[in-house]
Amino acid sequence: MKVVEKIDNVRKEVKKIKESGKSIGLVPTMGCLHYGHLSLIKTSTSECAFTVVSIFVNPSQFNDPDDYKKYPRDIKRDIELLKKEKVDLVFAPSVEEMYKEKASTYVEVKGLSDILEGKFRPGHFRGVCTVVCKLFNIVQPDRAYFGWKDAQQLIIIRKMVSDLDIPVEVKGCPTVREKDGLAASSRNVFIGDKRKESLSLYKALKRIEEMILKEGIRDTSVLLKEGKGIITKYQGIELQYLEIVNMEDLTPVKKIEGKVLVLGAIKLPSVRLIDNIIIDA
Amino acid sequence: MKVVEKIDNVRKEVKKIKESGKSIGLVPTMGCLHYGHLSLIKTSTSECAFTVVSIFVNPSQFNDPDDYKKYPRDIKRDIELLKKEKVDLVFAPSVEEMYKEKASTYVEVKGLSDILEGKFRPGHFRGVCTVVCKLFNIVQPDRAYFGWKDAQQLIIIRKMVSDLDIPVEVKGCPTVREKDGLAASSRNVFIGDKRKESLSLYKALKRIEEMILKEGIRDTSVLLKEGKGIITKYQGIELQYLEIVNMEDLTPVKKIEGKVLVLGAIKLPSVRLIDNIIIDA
Repeated sequence: MKVVEKIDNVRKEVKKIKESGKSIGLVPTMGCLHYGHLSLIKTSTSECAFTVVSIFVNPSQFNDPDDYKKYPRDIKRDIELLKKEKVDLVFAPSVEEMYKEKASTYVEVKGLSDILEGKFRPGHFRGVCTVVCKLFNIVQPDRAYFGWKDAQQLIIIRKMVSDLDIPVEVKGCPTVREKDGLAASSRNVFIGDKRKESLSLYKALKRIEEMILKEGIRDTSVLLKEGKGIITKYQGIELQYLEIVNMEDLTPVKKIEGKVLVLGAIKLPSVRLIDNIIIDA
Repeated sequence: MKVVEKIDNVRKEVKKIKESGKSIGLVPTMGCLHYGHLSLIKTSTSECAFTVVSIFVNPSQFNDPDDYKKYPRDIKRDIELLKKEKVDLVFAPSVEEMYKEKASTYVEVKGLSDILEGKFRPGHFRGVCTVVCKLFNIVQPDRAYFGWKDAQQLIIIRKMVSDLDIPVEVKGCPTVREKDGLAASSRNVFIGDKRKESLSLYKALKRIEEMILKEGIRDTSVLLKEGKGIITKYQGIELQYLEIVNMEDLTPVKKIEGKVLVLGAIKLPSVRLIDNIIIDA
C-alpha cells in the first residue's frame, strides 16, 4: 500500500493502472476511519482491481471554522487500519496541495444543496461537490463509494455526476451501526456521556418505520409529530430537522407511497449528529 | 469521419481510442464554422491522433434569449467543411441530449467571470464553464483547443481546469483575422453594411499597440483615452468596454510592464463584437 501526498504522484499511479486496463475504486474520506468507512473500502476492494482511499479534511465544506478545527484527525491510526485492508493507494494531501493558486472555481448542485442539511450548513454541499469533483479528476475512478449515512450528500453527488456527465459510477453503501443502533460517524468520539441522548434520533426513525410498516400509517404529519416528540422529550437536545422526503428530489412527502427517506439532525451540547433510514412502504 | 448525436456513442468511440493509447484532441465549437475554427482544428489534427469537434449552441451561456434564437446555425455546411479536415468524430448533440433530467449543477469560476464580458453578459461564463466541463467529461481529451479571440473565456477555462484538477491541457490558438483585420467570428454574418464601424475596435487596439511599442507610452489612462476616442467617433456604435488588464487575473493595469491584454466590446445596431490583442512591452 502506497501513501502519497501529491496530486502528481496519484496521477502517475493511476496512469499505470489505467494502461493495464484495471478498474479503479475510490473511497473519499475525511479520515478518522470507522466501521462505516471500512465497509465502503471492503466493497471497493471486492469490486475493483485497484482501490484508492483519500483522506482529506476539506476546509471548504465546513461552514463553522470551529467545527473544522476540532474535527477528529488521526492519520497514523488510519494508515495502520488501511494496511489491514486490500487498499492499494492512500491519497492524503495537505490543504495547500488541494487548494493552490487561490482556487476560485466551485461546483454546485442548486436546489438540492440549499435544503435540509444545506439550510443548517450553508455552503457545505458546494464544498463537498467541488472537492469530490477534484478527487474524481485526480483519481479518475471507475466507481466511487459513499455511505447512505450521508443520504443527502449521496443524492447530490449522483445528481452532479449525472448533470456533468462525469464518467464514474457512484455506489451507495448501507449505513453501518453500532450495537445500540447509533450510526457510525467520526464525530461520535465527541458524544461523551450523552449516549442516551445521541440515540434519540435513531429511536425516532425506528418508531416512524414501525408506524409505517406495522401500523399502516401513511400521513407524514402524524408520523413526524410522533418522531419529533420522541426527540424533544430528552433534555439538552436541539432538534434541527426531521423530515420525510422523496428519494429523488428530496421534496417533502405528504402521504407515503413507495420509497421514502426519513432524515434528521440533532445537536447535543458537544456534537451535531445526523441520521436517516429508507423505508419502502 | 463519424457524426454522432448521443453522449453514449461518443463514450464508445472514445473508449476504443483510449484503449489503443492514442491521444485525443477536442475542439469545442458552436458551429457556423469559420477560419478561426479551422485553425484550431488543424492544430488539433497536427498534435493529436484523434480529433473530436463538438458543435453545440449552448443555451445556458446566452444571457439574451433573442441572441440565442438568432445565433447562426448551419450544421450541414459545417459537416461538409469538417470532412475536408482530418477530423475523426463530430459530436453534435441536441439541447435535450446535453441537458436532460432538469440539470441543476453549475461550474463557476468566481471573480474572473463577473468582470469585463461577464459584467455585460451575466451568467455567460457559468454556462460556458458548465458545458465545457461536461464536454471534457464526455470526450476525455488529452488536449482542448480554444481561440485567443475569446481571451477571457480561455483564461477562465484554464483557471477552471487548474482549480478542479481536470486532466486536460488547454491550448490557446491565435486569433484568425480577415484581410482588413476583423477577427473571425460566427457573428460577423450580422455585420451587413457596418463593416467600417465593425473595424473600429481593431483600429483602437492597433493604435494602442503602436503607442506602447513605438511611442513608448506606458500610462494606460492615456492609451485608453486615445483608444476610446477612435471608437466613439463612429456613429451608431456603443462602446461597452475597453480595458488593459493583467494576463493572469484580468485586473486593470495602470502602468504597462511586460505582457498585457487589451480587450474590448462594441455594439453595432445588428451585432455585438469583441476583440483583443496581447502586447508584450
